[in-house]
Amino acid sequence: MSRRSVEILDTTLRDGAQAEGISFSVNDKFQVVETLAALGVRYIEAGNPGSNPKDRAFYNRFQTEPPKMDQSLLAAFGSTRRKHTDVAQDPGLRDLLDAGTPVIVLFGKVWDLEVRDILKCSHKENIAMIRESVAWCCSQGREVIFDAEHYFEASLANEEYALRCLEAACEGGASVVCLCDTNGASMPELISEKTRKAVDTLTDVRVGIHCHNDAGLAVANSIAGVLAGASHVQGTLNGIGERCGNANLSTIIANLQLKYDISCIPEDRLDQLTPLTRKMADVANLTLPNGEPYVGLSAFSHKGGMHVDGVKKNPITFEHIDPRTVGNNRRFLLSEVSGRSAVLDIIRKVKPDIGRDAPEVGQVLQKLKEMEHQGYQYEGAEASLALLICKELGLYQPFFKLEKLRIASEQPRSGTVSAYAFIKIFVDGVGEATAAEGEGPVNAMDQALKRAMQVFYPELTHVRLTDYKVRVLTAEATASQVRTLIESTDGRQIWNTVGVSNDILEASWQALVDSLEYQLMRRQLAWED
Amino acid sequence: MSRRSVEILDTTLRDGAQAEGISFSVNDKFQVVETLAALGVRYIEAGNPGSNPKDRAFYNRFQTEPPKMDQSLLAAFGSTRRKHTDVAQDPGLRDLLDAGTPVIVLFGKVWDLEVRDILKCSHKENIAMIRESVAWCCSQGREVIFDAEHYFEASLANEEYALRCLEAACEGGASVVCLCDTNGASMPELISEKTRKAVDTLTDVRVGIHCHNDAGLAVANSIAGVLAGASHVQGTLNGIGERCGNANLSTIIANLQLKYDISCIPEDRLDQLTPLTRKMADVANLTLPNGEPYVGLSAFSHKGGMHVDGVKKNPITFEHIDPRTVGNNRRFLLSEVSGRSAVLDIIRKVKPDIGRDAPEVGQVLQKLKEMEHQGYQYEGAEASLALLICKELGLYQPFFKLEKLRIASEQPRSGTVSAYAFIKIFVDGVGEATAAEGEGPVNAMDQALKRAMQVFYPELTHVRLTDYKVRVLTAEATASQVRTLIESTDGRQIWNTVGVSNDILEASWQALVDSLEYQLMRRQLAWED
Repeated sequence: MSRRSVEILDTTLRDGAQAEGISFSVNDKFQVVETLAALGVRYIEAGNPGSNPKDRAFYNRFQTEPPKMDQSLLAAFGSTRRKHTDVAQDPGLRDLLDAGTPVIVLFGKVWDLEVRDILKCSHKENIAMIRESVAWCCSQGREVIFDAEHYFEASLANEEYALRCLEAACEGGASVVCLCDTNGASMPELISEKTRKAVDTLTDVRVGIHCHNDAGLAVANSIAGVLAGASHVQGTLNGIGERCGNANLSTIIANLQLKYDISCIPEDRLDQLTPLTRKMADVANLTLPNGEPYVGLSAFSHKGGMHVDGVKKNPITFEHIDPRTVGNNRRFLLSEVSGRSAVLDIIRKVKPDIGRDAPEVGQVLQKLKEMEHQGYQYEGAEASLALLICKELGLYQPFFKLEKLRIASEQPRSGTVSAYAFIKIFVDGVGEATAAEGEGPVNAMDQALKRAMQVFYPELTHVRLTDYKVRVLTAEATASQVRTLIESTDGRQIWNTVGVSNDILEASWQALVDSLEYQLMRRQLAWED
Repeated sequence: MSRRSVEILDTTLRDGAQAEGISFSVNDKFQVVETLAALGVRYIEAGNPGSNPKDRAFYNRFQTEPPKMDQSLLAAFGSTRRKHTDVAQDPGLRDLLDAGTPVIVLFGKVWDLEVRDILKCSHKENIAMIRESVAWCCSQGREVIFDAEHYFEASLANEEYALRCLEAACEGGASVVCLCDTNGASMPELISEKTRKAVDTLTDVRVGIHCHNDAGLAVANSIAGVLAGASHVQGTLNGIGERCGNANLSTIIANLQLKYDISCIPEDRLDQLTPLTRKMADVANLTLPNGEPYVGLSAFSHKGGMHVDGVKKNPITFEHIDPRTVGNNRRFLLSEVSGRSAVLDIIRKVKPDIGRDAPEVGQVLQKLKEMEHQGYQYEGAEASLALLICKELGLYQPFFKLEKLRIASEQPRSGTVSAYAFIKIFVDGVGEATAAEGEGPVNAMDQALKRAMQVFYPELTHVRLTDYKVRVLTAEATASQVRTLIESTDGRQIWNTVGVSNDILEASWQALVDSLEYQLMRRQLAWED
């Protein structure tokens, strides 16, 4: 017998975008799609093309610049047709078809109370709406997934009617009918019972499960659905969504593959679960909770002395799986010994022959603690860390001396330019003064510094910034401490640097300088990457 | 038949303190105890008196200044006696008894692998350690709870021996034997099966369940244990704990009382669940996740347009319980995906008599979508939204005209000051030119603008910034789009504003201007808050 599998549908771009504080730009949406495609998720639901201009812009761009997807299909989301309307004339269905995706997710009502009070139409008309909408989208060459809103309330109120609605979707040609616990109200026993009933009643269709976390049970309920026969699971990779969130797919995927031996994504991509889930959190500008199962920073971190000892003797005493299986790491907290091993790996990139107990290791660790106390963070800024180590080991000589940097900015602005930077630097006693304008002060400063440095270091010509992030660390209004993270590339390598100050321009300056000096240092020491 | 009930044991001060980043002072511990006592939790486990001086100091103070507890009992936590030691001479048991608590939680090994490899003693000696330790503490007048570490691994490996260990605790006089899923490795089916077996095998003792969240199932597993007969649940009110955390008691209490009609805390205190859980998070210096079931800020927040409409028509469409039951609130969020109803509430603050279908409502919605497409976000920036509405409705007249704002910044900086702002504004044809220096350009700009405006609007004297946030929206390096959010106060009210630009100073300028103009507009229109 072949291994059982379930399909995963991620709805970060639709249900996830309904979470408080979440707002995706068109660019963000593309990054989300690429991340999910890299993980090998089967369906990527990407918003309602009829609901807002940003979603429309996304689908337009998707048609002209389709991203690489070897396992995944893009799905547009929308409603069944309006009541008493011809499907071919329905504006919502037209928007869905115009989105040009291979898959369409249609949601519809199956709860008799909602048919009466919200739709205000007959039971029969609602069934026609479902069947005809599904059939019309199928006839246009699309795969159709039918999402049955409030399925569990519906089946408690009138199970015969709820099932009749699902059958209508099947008659229309749906490939999946998905049972939605829209309010997150249901307990696992109910999910299990009603899913089994739907699976037993319907033939030639896959049954799906879509859970919300209002009772903290979205993961358990999704698994209960799968154990009752569902073969399609909807959720969001980070569990974001309306109210308390959708079912957390990173947890579900790991549980199904590792605890139940049910396949969800290609086996050889499971070790991408942690990095890709973290990348998704970055795109959404979320802080991934440290305690997130499987993928969180603390998921395999040991603090209690007994736990640390136990894990060192035999990991099965306090680890339920090998963290590498999901691309995560074991960490020992508050332990000089563990700190040492982690830092040693990086020091050896700079100075390969250093011994584990060399005094420089302790010195770097001490410096690292001081800098982290000031607000620096080197996770995600490894280039700044490498420079810090070079400085501590006495390997670093400044590549230039700053005489003066002056930035001027004006409001109201004229055109795109709103800032100017004047700079004078010295390299080996030779001065270079230059200036640049830019879209904002950081851009102007970046341009001016690069222009001055290239006179002495032509190898910097191809270095450019590819990402810029800002985090305010303390809440003391505009004089707060600010951390900036900068990502740079020379077209081959990518590196990240950090700066911290109560002045955002100074923090940006530090990260910019580190970015250029790292590139020069790397060439000087001929580091392998 | 009387209503079923289960006892709650909170281990925030013991297992919770093992979470990454958590550290409680003796004062914090008292606050935690008071908060849990206010909720009416049955047992409050408060750390191992033998393990560190802080825990000892806590128990000493507890004996001299006992806090008010009408429903709760304090429990000290520690291990069964050492092997081949007389209980009366065991230092750990002496520390436990010296702590002076009415309840003692003793943990012990029940997994044959651990008895062999960690304890390195015979099966028989381990059983004697359990029975004698429990009996000794009982003989000293204490109630004893026995925590069986790794119970589920133990019962898979050698269930007969694991059960024999539990029986030894019963023979010693334990009131509860608690089955611990120490690694968070178990699935609900296993929890259910093994709990039922223990309940059926043991008589005259309550069976407890203690789960960890490594597979995202701690809540589901705790409930599975209760449904299989457990009548005692251990966890932490906020779900904090080693690695991925302990079972979240706020979720479990709400689920058991509201979904299963099983009593955990006094019925009339359920509406204290949200405020007390938030207070616990404050004491632990945790940010309570917005999506926390039942008690989170977003737990009953509605953003999608259909959701907002649905809840307004009939709350059961998108709320699984009445939020007031647990002391939480319903909120409607504003965004491009939210519809007319959500926006209408805010428009009515500005123009109370406006009709639901007035053309201005559609016009504001349209504008909102455009602005969000540009990167503005009004959730968390309600003051900017109110101004936007005033502008759309023609109620807004600019309070000043900016002639010129010039900002200069220098590196290397001299002292704390690193930026200067020069400003000239006009109000009713009268000009005012001034300047200010600051820690960074945003601070300088804030000072200069306020100084100029106060000449005309002395009521702005007390307005000050209390928080400043920055988010880079697109990844196109330093010319990226930037969104800033500013929180302001006049000492009585707090309001939030937003700005977006590819220039961080321009984005900050917009949010600063909105902040002052909102305060002036509010007074002009005499809004109630």
